[in-house]
Parts: sequence; structure tokens; C-alpha cells
Amino acid sequence: MIENPAPKRTELSELGEFGLISHLTSDIKTIHTSTIKGIGDDAAVLENGDLLTLVSTDLLLEGIHFDLSFTPFKHLGYKAAVVNFSDIAAMNGSPRQLFVGISVSNRFPVEAMEELYEGIKLACERYQVDLAGGDTTSSPGGLFISMTVTGVVSKEKVVYRNTAKENDLICVSGDLGSAYLGLLLLEREKKVFLADPTMQPDLEGNDYVLERQLKPEARVDIVKKLDEAGILPTSMIDISDGLASEVLHLCRDSNMGCMIYEEKIPIDISAGAIASDFNIQAITAAMNGGEDYELLFTISMNDFEKISQLKDITIIGHITDPNAGCNLVSNDGVLVPILAQGFNHMREE
Amino acid sequence: MIENPAPKRTELSELGEFGLISHLTSDIKTIHTSTIKGIGDDAAVLENGDLLTLVSTDLLLEGIHFDLSFTPFKHLGYKAAVVNFSDIAAMNGSPRQLFVGISVSNRFPVEAMEELYEGIKLACERYQVDLAGGDTTSSPGGLFISMTVTGVVSKEKVVYRNTAKENDLICVSGDLGSAYLGLLLLEREKKVFLADPTMQPDLEGNDYVLERQLKPEARVDIVKKLDEAGILPTSMIDISDGLASEVLHLCRDSNMGCMIYEEKIPIDISAGAIASDFNIQAITAAMNGGEDYELLFTISMNDFEKISQLKDITIIGHITDPNAGCNLVSNDGVLVPILAQGFNHMREE
Repeated sequence: MIENPAPKRTELSELGEFGLISHLTSDIKTIHTSTIKGIGDDAAVLENGDLLTLVSTDLLLEGIHFDLSFTPFKHLGYKAAVVNFSDIAAMNGSPRQLFVGISVSNRFPVEAMEELYEGIKLACERYQVDLAGGDTTSSPGGLFISMTVTGVVSKEKVVYRNTAKENDLICVSGDLGSAYLGLLLLEREKKVFLADPTMQPDLEGNDYVLERQLKPEARVDIVKKLDEAGILPTSMIDISDGLASEVLHLCRDSNMGCMIYEEKIPIDISAGAIASDFNIQAITAAMNGGEDYELLFTISMNDFEKISQLKDITIIGHITDPNAGCNLVSNDGVLVPILAQGFNHMREE
Repeated sequence: MIENPAPKRTELSELGEFGLISHLTSDIKTIHTSTIKGIGDDAAVLENGDLLTLVSTDLLLEGIHFDLSFTPFKHLGYKAAVVNFSDIAAMNGSPRQLFVGISVSNRFPVEAMEELYEGIKLACERYQVDLAGGDTTSSPGGLFISMTVTGVVSKEKVVYRNTAKENDLICVSGDLGSAYLGLLLLEREKKVFLADPTMQPDLEGNDYVLERQLKPEARVDIVKKLDEAGILPTSMIDISDGLASEVLHLCRDSNMGCMIYEEKIPIDISAGAIASDFNIQAITAAMNGGEDYELLFTISMNDFEKISQLKDITIIGHITDPNAGCNLVSNDGVLVPILAQGFNHMREE
């Protein structure tokens, strides 16, 4: 879906591979002095002082990770970039350089790729990241996006996902489940539209969950806030696959168990209402939905006072002995073992 | 094509996304102390001292960049990795860490992915590169490989493609055109096979060009050799798209012209014979074929004596004033303007 369905349609073949990438990247300026050479050579060149370099890479495929029938290209570009920045935030780092690979079939006009890049550039601008490399090739069908992001973090501040300790407090930023509910809404309206194309989409009043799905943000602000408060998380991961899957990931990698309290899990008020429209519980969307891109992290109990001062962070439980397993205490006091039922793009087929 | 068509077929869905990547990467050990954290967190963590970090990324798509009907998975994995290492060599650097993203449809068994990874791991071992990140997702159809490689180079030794100077000597490593002839052979035998599946492929005596196509190498050895000889190239690029395209790239980016001599262009003797089988000239394969992954570089005239001592490097011409344009002096003394007709995956559709 092109946001602005302009009459102009430039065939990709008019530009060719080199033409397309230089067309799309001609106006890019670098921000960081560490970006010695960005786009335009065999490899980008980055300088690094006393910091650690972080690298994360992601693949996004049409029909698996996104549905172009309800995703504007600009949003897609923005989200694809932000999702990568989130991986750097989850290491307690700051994103610095982004490398974009796009495979596109000739069913797409150049304008669609321009909108995609507009979104990418907007994300880079907002997060102060240099778009430092780009590659486009044709695809036999569909759109494929590959993104690699580098980031920096000082040695004493890098945070892994396998270092949670017993009795640590488990925290999340923001609220959970809304992105998944946004997806359900979009998929429902798509079905309605396919059944009767004269129907207008009924998306009013659902701005928050739609924005969470279409235009998520990376919580680099939380990384900064924690740093300013003098809190170094003991472990951290970003929530791309639902809380259940991520908390299991963190506990398994740390060889620990956990106790999470349903009543503590932050859910936006509008998400609750939309969930009941779909006859699901909002907690299910929070636990097993995905794409919230909030941070899940643990802190030492000693930091309890400090973290209580911070807005937009919620303590949802604590780390336990591994033998206790990973459990959710439901609102009616029942202990439920946490199972991963998150987004699994491999099983989804 | 699976090299060893074993009776075992494990469906991708049996492992799931996390299962597949941990299955494929469980035996990976890191080599470099700079790889502080490889696979297993949101991002890899690399340390860097006084060196520059290089990053290069590539996308490879089934049906565009490779044909599985004649490409064994192991070779594909090896080549995909090596092609990335070549980008680092082209900056005069050494590859250090590799990040692999694979999208695969459930038409492939796990064993195919294992063979692919075997090739990747073999390349990493040979080139002393750490496989530091991996991601797999399902694909709606076909196989897509995204690779990102990091490398290092000291500040005073990084070589760009836009820094050739007038009168510099133009050099290439190895020989050119063979990889393209290998591809023509494989495509011809595929057609024969499709027309009559009882026919045996006639590939004997063509080992060299087939190996050049299926299992190219990155010329990190040339980077080392030049360094040992005290030669710092004035500009460099790797030859992925044919000599014509790359020399134009280097000259255009350096705002220079060039004069290349047909008689100097290194072509393997077997390539000449195979080219005439296909009724093409070997020089055409060298100029407009692709995937040789040799290095094209320029050196100062002052280094002429030094470079003459080195094996496997050929001086093929020199850099001129930009107004002279980019020209090839043919064997019969005719000046022919060089045009890019190389591999262009965007126009190929």
C-alpha cells in the first residue's frame, strides 16, 4: 500500500540496481564522527574508541512479518529500522549505524521504495542513527528486507540476557499486548474489506493499538533513564515475541526460574476494551502476542527504591530458584506455569 | 540440491524458529578475543582497539543469485560467506565476524539447512572468521540468505574505491571470466537434463571454471601479500560484476579515466577453450561476466618494481585524465570505450 498513490510510476528497471540504491540514498548525511565511510564502498568503515561495538541483524519478509495490504510502506520502513534499534537498546546500548538490504520484485514501483526509505530515514533521524549501507536486488516475488544495525555501549554497561540472579526484580517498560490487538484489528478489517470492498474500515478510536502495531518505538529512552538513575539492569531482552516467550528466554539463558504476577502486568486501558471485542483476555495478548518492543529486564533488589521513582517502568515479579520453574500468579491466586506460545514465524506457516 | 540425499528428512516445523537456529549454531566456537559475545543475545558484542571496524552486508535470493538445481547447499553456504569476506578484502581489511540471516520455506528439510551451514562454517574456519550471529525465519517460498560481515583494518591502511590518481597502474589478481563460463556450463547441462533426464551431465575436464563458479575464494591472500611487499593500493574494489562494470565504478568514483589493454587481461587457458565452445570470446566473459571475486586495484607508479615481483597479480592498464574516458585497447589496437554490461540483478528479471 502506497500512502500517496501518485500517478507517477517509475519502473524499477528504469533505474537498475545501482541506480535504485544511489537514487534512494543520495541525500543521506552521516551524523557520527565514528561513521568514517557510509554508503558507497565495499563496506562501511566505523571507528571505535573505548566502547564495545554491538551488531544485530534481522530479516523481514512480506507475507510472514508484514502484510502490505494494511501496512503503509513508510510505516514498514520505520518499523523495520526501529525493531533493530530495539535489539541494541536491549543490550543497554545506543544504535549508531544502520545497513539496509532490500529485495524487491518489479511489481513494486520506485515510489513504493522511496516511501519505504522515507520511513527508514525518519527512524534514523529520530534515533540519531546513520544509514551507513544499502543494497538492493530484485526478488522473484515479494519484498524482503534485511537490516543490520550496529551500536555502542561501554564495557561496564553492556547487559546480557543470561545474567539474571535469584531474587532480582523483573521489570517491563511501557505496556504490553497492544501491538497484537492492533494486528487483530487490521486483519479483521482486511477480511471485511475483502468480503465487501465498499465497506469502510472501522478503525476509529483505536489509534493507540494501531500505532503500537504499525509504528512501534525502541525504548532507548528507558536505557537512558535507567542510566541517569544509576540503575544497571542485571539482565535485559526486548519483547518482540510476547512476554511469556521472552521471560522464558531470559530465565532459561540465566538458568533461573521466575514468578510473575498477572495483576502487575501493564496493559493499556484501550487494549482491555478491544480484547473483549475479540473475546480474548488482554493478559493473553500481553503474554502471547508480540511486537510490543518494550524492554524486559531484571534489577537487583537494592535498586528497588530507585526504580520506584521512575515512570513508565513496572515491576511485575521476581527471579527464583530454577527448580521453582517459571510461573504466573493469576488474579485469582492460581499458579500457572508459563508456556511460550509467542510469535513463531517458523511454525506459523 | 542436497549433496548427500540421506533418507532422513526433518521438517523445519519440528524444530521451530528458535530450535532451528540453536540447532544450526550449537557447535560454533569463537576465535577472536574481540568477539565478546557471539550468537545468543539481542546483538553480538565486538571489542575494538585502535582499528577501524568494517561492515558489509549482502542479500542472496534463490532464482536471482543462485539456482539450487545445480548448486549444492554446502557450496552455496561457502560462497555466500566468501563473497562477503571479499568485500572486506576490497577495503584492504581482514574479515572478523559473520552474521547470517536465512529465510526458508518448508519445502526444504533441516538437512538442507545443515549442509548450507556446513559450507558457511567451513568458510569461516578457512578464513578465520567468527560466525557471531544467526537468525532464521520462514519464507513464503524459496530460500533467502542475508549475510553481514565485519572486518578490521588499521586507519592508515584502509583503501577506498574513490581514491585512484592519474597515472596509477591498474592491477587485478588471479584471472577473470572463468566463473561466468562455469555458470554457462552449468546452465547448459541443466537444459540438457531438463530435456532428457536420463542424460548424464557432461562436465568433465571443466573443473577449474566450475570451481570458480561454485566455490570462489576471497583474495585475503592478496591483501596480505601486498602488505608484506610494502605496497598500499591507492584504490581497490572486488570484481563481482565483471571487469568492465568494476573499472567504471572505480574510475567514476575517483573522477578519473582509464586505459586497459586487452592483451594484458589475465584469462585461464581452459576458459579460452570453453568460451569458444559457447561461441563467445573469453575477453567478453572477463569484461562482462561476473562473480570472479578477484581484486581490482590501483597502485602508484613508484610501486612498479615491487609489484612486478609478486605472482598472481597482473598490471592491465593505467589511470588517465577523466576527459580521456574509460577505454579498452583491443588486441588489434582499436580503442573501444568500456561500457558496463555486467551482472545486474535488477535488470535481469
